[in-house]
Amino acid sequence: MKWVPSKSVPFVIPYYGRWILPTVGQVWPKPQQQTSSETFFVLRPTMFQFQIVGERCDIIDEAVRRYYQLIFYPGAAASAPLAYPPTLSVIQDNPQFRAFLDSVAIDLKQPCEYLPSADMIESYNIKIDTPDNPLKATISSDSVWGILRGLESLSQLVYSSTETGVAYQINATEIVDFPRFSYRGLMMDSARHYMPLKTIKKMTDLMAQNKMNVLHWHLTDDASFPYESTLFPNISRYGSFQPFSHIYTANDVREIIEYARMRGIRVIPEFDSPDHTQSWGRGQPKLLTECYDDNGVLLVPDEYGAIMPTREENYVFLQQFFGEIFNTFPDPFVHLGGDEVSYYCWQRHPEIKAFMAANGWGTDFTKLEQYYFDRLTTATQEITQNQMRYIVWQELLDLNITLPTGTIVEVWKGAKEELNFLDELARITKYGYQTILSSPWYLNYISYGLDWEKYYLAEPLDFDGSDEQKKLVIGGEVVMWSEYVDSVSVIPRTWPRASTVAERLWSDRSVNDTTLAALRLEEHRCRLLKRGFAVDPSNGVNFCEQEWDM
Amino acid sequence: MKWVPSKSVPFVIPYYGRWILPTVGQVWPKPQQQTSSETFFVLRPTMFQFQIVGERCDIIDEAVRRYYQLIFYPGAAASAPLAYPPTLSVIQDNPQFRAFLDSVAIDLKQPCEYLPSADMIESYNIKIDTPDNPLKATISSDSVWGILRGLESLSQLVYSSTETGVAYQINATEIVDFPRFSYRGLMMDSARHYMPLKTIKKMTDLMAQNKMNVLHWHLTDDASFPYESTLFPNISRYGSFQPFSHIYTANDVREIIEYARMRGIRVIPEFDSPDHTQSWGRGQPKLLTECYDDNGVLLVPDEYGAIMPTREENYVFLQQFFGEIFNTFPDPFVHLGGDEVSYYCWQRHPEIKAFMAANGWGTDFTKLEQYYFDRLTTATQEITQNQMRYIVWQELLDLNITLPTGTIVEVWKGAKEELNFLDELARITKYGYQTILSSPWYLNYISYGLDWEKYYLAEPLDFDGSDEQKKLVIGGEVVMWSEYVDSVSVIPRTWPRASTVAERLWSDRSVNDTTLAALRLEEHRCRLLKRGFAVDPSNGVNFCEQEWDM
Repeated sequence: MKWVPSKSVPFVIPYYGRWILPTVGQVWPKPQQQTSSETFFVLRPTMFQFQIVGERCDIIDEAVRRYYQLIFYPGAAASAPLAYPPTLSVIQDNPQFRAFLDSVAIDLKQPCEYLPSADMIESYNIKIDTPDNPLKATISSDSVWGILRGLESLSQLVYSSTETGVAYQINATEIVDFPRFSYRGLMMDSARHYMPLKTIKKMTDLMAQNKMNVLHWHLTDDASFPYESTLFPNISRYGSFQPFSHIYTANDVREIIEYARMRGIRVIPEFDSPDHTQSWGRGQPKLLTECYDDNGVLLVPDEYGAIMPTREENYVFLQQFFGEIFNTFPDPFVHLGGDEVSYYCWQRHPEIKAFMAANGWGTDFTKLEQYYFDRLTTATQEITQNQMRYIVWQELLDLNITLPTGTIVEVWKGAKEELNFLDELARITKYGYQTILSSPWYLNYISYGLDWEKYYLAEPLDFDGSDEQKKLVIGGEVVMWSEYVDSVSVIPRTWPRASTVAERLWSDRSVNDTTLAALRLEEHRCRLLKRGFAVDPSNGVNFCEQEWDM
Repeated sequence: MKWVPSKSVPFVIPYYGRWILPTVGQVWPKPQQQTSSETFFVLRPTMFQFQIVGERCDIIDEAVRRYYQLIFYPGAAASAPLAYPPTLSVIQDNPQFRAFLDSVAIDLKQPCEYLPSADMIESYNIKIDTPDNPLKATISSDSVWGILRGLESLSQLVYSSTETGVAYQINATEIVDFPRFSYRGLMMDSARHYMPLKTIKKMTDLMAQNKMNVLHWHLTDDASFPYESTLFPNISRYGSFQPFSHIYTANDVREIIEYARMRGIRVIPEFDSPDHTQSWGRGQPKLLTECYDDNGVLLVPDEYGAIMPTREENYVFLQQFFGEIFNTFPDPFVHLGGDEVSYYCWQRHPEIKAFMAANGWGTDFTKLEQYYFDRLTTATQEITQNQMRYIVWQELLDLNITLPTGTIVEVWKGAKEELNFLDELARITKYGYQTILSSPWYLNYISYGLDWEKYYLAEPLDFDGSDEQKKLVIGGEVVMWSEYVDSVSVIPRTWPRASTVAERLWSDRSVNDTTLAALRLEEHRCRLLKRGFAVDPSNGVNFCEQEWDM
């Protein structure tokens, strides 16, 4: 389908009016293959239905309800649609009109999987009035996750036409689509500011509407520990901002996981250790390293370092705690953190000094950190019957720490320096671990003006490396650290910037023309707004048919 | 009153928990004089009333309803209050408890004025259990505007006590308060992005809750002309983004003016000319200067420059148009703009070249701009019987253009360069016009991290100049240009950053300790959030008792 410029502004002159004309009925992220025709169908809300012709399960049943709503009544911000379908006689006069489209077949060819996973298939086909499917529309896939992605694309193909006045119109279209990378994540930080469940759910909806598939939940940090552990409730009792209002109960966590599962999104929790753990200490005495100054004087009260790595009972705690995490979060992957470990308090603690000497490690504290991670991974493998798998921040490799096979390494350095992340990727992939990239996508670092192009153009495979190295890069993720953002602005600060990363990770590598992307992003932004999500404008001076009016 | 740190976090250790402890029951902006005692009163929602003991009018009647609501049921984000008043016996045991406070007297000593104005009095006194007003509370002022400011302060003095468990508590307090500067403005730009009425009203509420008193409404620009003129409806018909949904009717404008009047806020419209007027041209043919290239070839279609200054009928239009504006907006001040005038098309237009030659002006186009403003001000004085008064951007003085006595000049340069604005102020005040400052307060230029201190510390009177020059500085304003912000984020991007400017312009010059301000700003931000406004966090890692959960 050609780009059809909006008719609401007749034409554009320099300096006058909007800067960018949005596309109409284009899919974001751009499908791998798409052919469209100018001929169109009209959808009628009172007649339309999804027909489930293949396998079915709760995920499908929920999804067709959700997408019926998204197509016809897209959200709180939406008021009346442009127009109801015109009478048949009027629309029949239009030479491009094919028919009313009163159903879309959902053809899942294999039984549903229960949980999205690292290996999930997300490919799907859409056929609307193709030669082998005349006057009909079908979404087909071998996987329930593919069906979800196809429903999202279908919902984006439906548009209001200012030309015909039809509120729900769709062009004859064929799509063959699949993701380029299997890991397309978004990291939320609910430790520096508490994020209410409603906010996390909205972020999950937005991820699904951008075909992202991993919610990396940075649950704890120095500032707070909002996760209410069943085995160790004292940690959130003393380590959350407020132990009743600012926590996530086991039930809250289940609610998020189920919400994400319905949308084909994995939830991977991060319990960052051994550092970034100040909030753990108050409710779990003796966990952290007491801190001494250079003269051997104990710093009191409440000066602590990272988790005390030489105290045997700490590994008992960690085993039980991560055992609980493994039972609470169904995905086998847990992010263990491992970033920015300060050795200051380790270096000055008499027990640790004795332990280092006994092992002949001198002053090489990376050996102690290696010891900590060896013990942690051994303990967690034991309690999970070798089922738990790990993601870690890149520091562990920077320090030459060896990690269990199957661990994924997250490259985050170079976040502030231009393109440095390619060198980091080249270096880290040499270790042979699977790798995900977040360096260029630190969306918390805001700046003035049109800023999405740098996120869009960051290409994960642009580094100097062998084919084997490149195959190790399984995707990437947007990160939104929350030191300076809370539930008020986390959505507009993340979106639609994160959409541009979603396209980088889903679409073909050749989809990298920012001028063309801008027109589609403009439509996509207004679409998300219309669906009731407070997403920021992305292309400067412009407007949406329906503005945010809350 | 001493700062009482919040009790919800028992104490703070390095790196752990929130970075800043909010104050409790502190007023923002800080009053000129305040003494408070540790003894307190308890307010009961079912018993409490305002008693109007002096003059009254609709503004007072509306205000006491509004502030009852703000004190006891502060907004959508609020859930249950901390606790209802404890039984009398329990609270009587507290040695600091004085009594239940079941009424506050509103003592307006002079009849209400109808409209807020440049000369309005905003001073007020609050006496709660002072020696001359024992066991009683009174807000008094000579002016209805002072009563409004006093009600705002009173509402901020009421706090929930984690110590006593009382939901609505207020300390014995005496306040003598008045603003340092008479002009404390906020500029909204509804031309680059359309701002729905709801958004403008929320901004107005937030201004009142920060004791700001001028809404400078930048209504039109190159991008769009959303003001629907009664005399010239074609301008918005062809010059707005969308002529039905993206305009302000005369009724919309009245609604905003009335909303602002009730809150003691003036509305000053800006119709920027002769440049920044591309959107005016389509519905008002011949208004703009046709543009020729260097070879005298007319650039077609739709290349225009600023308003054509040598075409007589344009002054007829401008007179009628600004006559309508003067009748629509009750404040005598209108912002005429005058910034960034490009001479490119003027220089190349044959009629203008002939006009310049006939007047012997050579190539000095500032003379033509002077001519334009002479004609514009003469025309508008004529139609308004010399009642209209002007604000202009500083360029006109930079070009040595003479303006009518009583014109106010807005200094905006140095917005991006550090402290340069002081040189601009020193230079501009030498011309003898009253001056307002906005250079350091371009809040649209966002940046990462803790950013409010630079706004807070920008001191308008810190320039080298005589006492006479300093007296000319009557205030300043926050500006929020909307190229990259629309109704989704304009509130969190503006607030509470604008609050820091509000304090700079209201409170004593000596109130400039950012460490102390941070504690009060933290409370103020959570208060605004609790009242239902989506204002951003300002001090990094923290939380509010009631988070934004929409």
